[in-house]
Order: sequence, then structure tokens, then C-alpha cells
Amino acid sequence: MSVNEPEAFNRFEAIEVLERTPRTLEMFLTGLSEGWLICNEGEGTWNVREVIEHLIEGEKMNWIPRLEFILKEGESRPFPPFDRYSHLSNKSAQSLAEKLLEFQKLRAENLDKLNKRIESEADLERTGYHPAFGVVKVRELIATWAAHDLTHIAQIVRVMAKRYEQAVGPWREYLGILK
Amino acid sequence: MSVNEPEAFNRFEAIEVLERTPRTLEMFLTGLSEGWLICNEGEGTWNVREVIEHLIEGEKMNWIPRLEFILKEGESRPFPPFDRYSHLSNKSAQSLAEKLLEFQKLRAENLDKLNKRIESEADLERTGYHPAFGVVKVRELIATWAAHDLTHIAQIVRVMAKRYEQAVGPWREYLGILK
Repeated sequence: MSVNEPEAFNRFEAIEVLERTPRTLEMFLTGLSEGWLICNEGEGTWNVREVIEHLIEGEKMNWIPRLEFILKEGESRPFPPFDRYSHLSNKSAQSLAEKLLEFQKLRAENLDKLNKRIESEADLERTGYHPAFGVVKVRELIATWAAHDLTHIAQIVRVMAKRYEQAVGPWREYLGILK
Repeated sequence: MSVNEPEAFNRFEAIEVLERTPRTLEMFLTGLSEGWLICNEGEGTWNVREVIEHLIEGEKMNWIPRLEFILKEGESRPFPPFDRYSHLSNKSAQSLAEKLLEFQKLRAENLDKLNKRIESEADLERTGYHPAFGVVKVRELIATWAAHDLTHIAQIVRVMAKRYEQAVGPWREYLGILK
């Protein structure tokens, strides 16, 4: 039996995750050899650096801009779509350490905005119009923001683990992540 | 095309991962609300606390003991099996913060032992006898130790993400981790 409550969302708990992600990634990734940073899962897949760029893009273009759009427009018009691949065409010369610092700075600013924009529990029930999904709620957006962090942390460690697919030899069988 | 080299193993790079895991988990997990720590993926699955207990058990019973067994016994006899579920029957009263500290301490000691036991590249090619797999190499054991960390970091964030399976609403469709 799962011990998850059916509707577990609480914005303060979501913020606990959101505020930890940048420093967790900094701790894990800073100083790693280039081999860990450039490996990927095959054609069209992202390496660690590209995942961080995607997280930065989300801070700039997705979460808070959409929150503000919902609060301003409600369901009156769909919010502009977010290009989930835009970071791939904006190659920057930043080092990974600089990218991680940028992510940390943007995230802190955005959590500050989140705290200012959401004044009450009632704000969490406000609705907007997603171009693909239709009506969505503010609390769904915030839950997705946190789950999206978790998705990309999972992606980073999975990409890294796959680098050792051959190196682990027969233990491959016990490592679900490699399958 | 994947940019992974077919045989990417280098023990110093494996150690980069091994030495980062405990503090990464400390950064990510310390101070989280209980709801994040007790959620799981259903009956028979582990919550965050149980994953950390499993990592501690591995430090005590698996990686270095097996390395030492290989270096001492070679292929002459199979190494004792490691019970991957033993931590579930040894419930401790330690807080998560204490468990994370114990993991950190044990890991540091074990990396110290690893550095002492492995004196040359040739040691990486030494072989032992796994009770289920047969002949295994020291370098496969070390690669597996690192990949095992990555597996369990992935598990932790996946378990946490699933707590929000309902909360994310229609965005579920975009979050591969929830599938």
C-alpha cells in the first residue's frame, strides 16, 4: 500500500523541493570530470549541461511568467507556449559552474516572486488556460514546477549511470536504471 | 549518437561520484517535511529513509568487504551474498539527519580504504567469484558502487515525484517520471 495521500499538495512543501534543487545540483555536479558532463543517452538526448540549460530556461520563460499570466488573464486566453527545446539553440559560453550559479540566482528570485504573488490558499485555486490541456490551476502549476525539478534530477543521474552500462559488467542485471 | 565511450571506466571518475553522493543527499533531504520522507511507490517499495538505510548497509556489508574478499581470495571461493533487504529488519531510532551523517562518515572511511587497497591499475583487473554471476573484476565492482549511488538517487527523486502524481493535474502527461 502506498502511503501517499491522494491529494498531497501543500505549497510550502513544494517550495522545500524548489529551494533545494539548485544547491543540490551544485553539490553534485561541480568539479566532475568532463566525461560525466558530456555523456548522453544517444542521439537527440541531453547531457548534464543541457539539462541545466533547460532548467534555467524554465526559470526565465515558464514557471513564474505562466503564474503571472494566470493571475492576470485567468482563463480569458491561453498562455503562450513554452519551447522546451529553446536552450538547445542558445549555446552559451558559460561554464557549468556559472550556469549552476545562474540557476541558483534565478530560482531564488522566482521563489521570492512566488511568495509575493500567492497571498492566500484561494490564489492556488485560480485558473488559467493551457494551450494544450485547457483549464489548469495555479496549484497544479506549482506542483508541476517541483515535479519537473525531480524529473530532471532523475534524468541527470540516469544519463550518468548509463555511461557505466558496460563498466559494471554482470551487475548490470541488478541495476534497474540501466534498463 | 551517444557520446559515451564504450568502456568509460576510470576509477578516479567513479570516486568523484562516490564522494559527492552523501553530501548531495544531505543537501537535498535535510529539513524536508515528513510527507516527503515517508511517501513510497506502493506496497513493498522503499521510502527515502529506507533508501538511505540501504546505502548505509552497503557501506558496511557490501562494497569494501567484497573488494577485500576479492583481493584476499581471488576466484577461489564465492563471496558471501549481501542481503539487499537487511536494513528493513533493523529499524533504528536514528533521525534522517543522523543517518545521513552516518552514511557520510562510512563513505569517507570506505573511500580511504579503497585508495589504500588499490595501488595500481593492475589491481582493477583482479577477479573474484560472485555467487550469482561468476567471475567479476574489481573495476566492475567499483563501477557498480558508483552506478548504485546513481540508481538510488534516481529512486529517491522518483518516489518523491510520484507523491505529486495527482497534484500536477494534466501536466502529468509531460512528466515521464510519473509513468
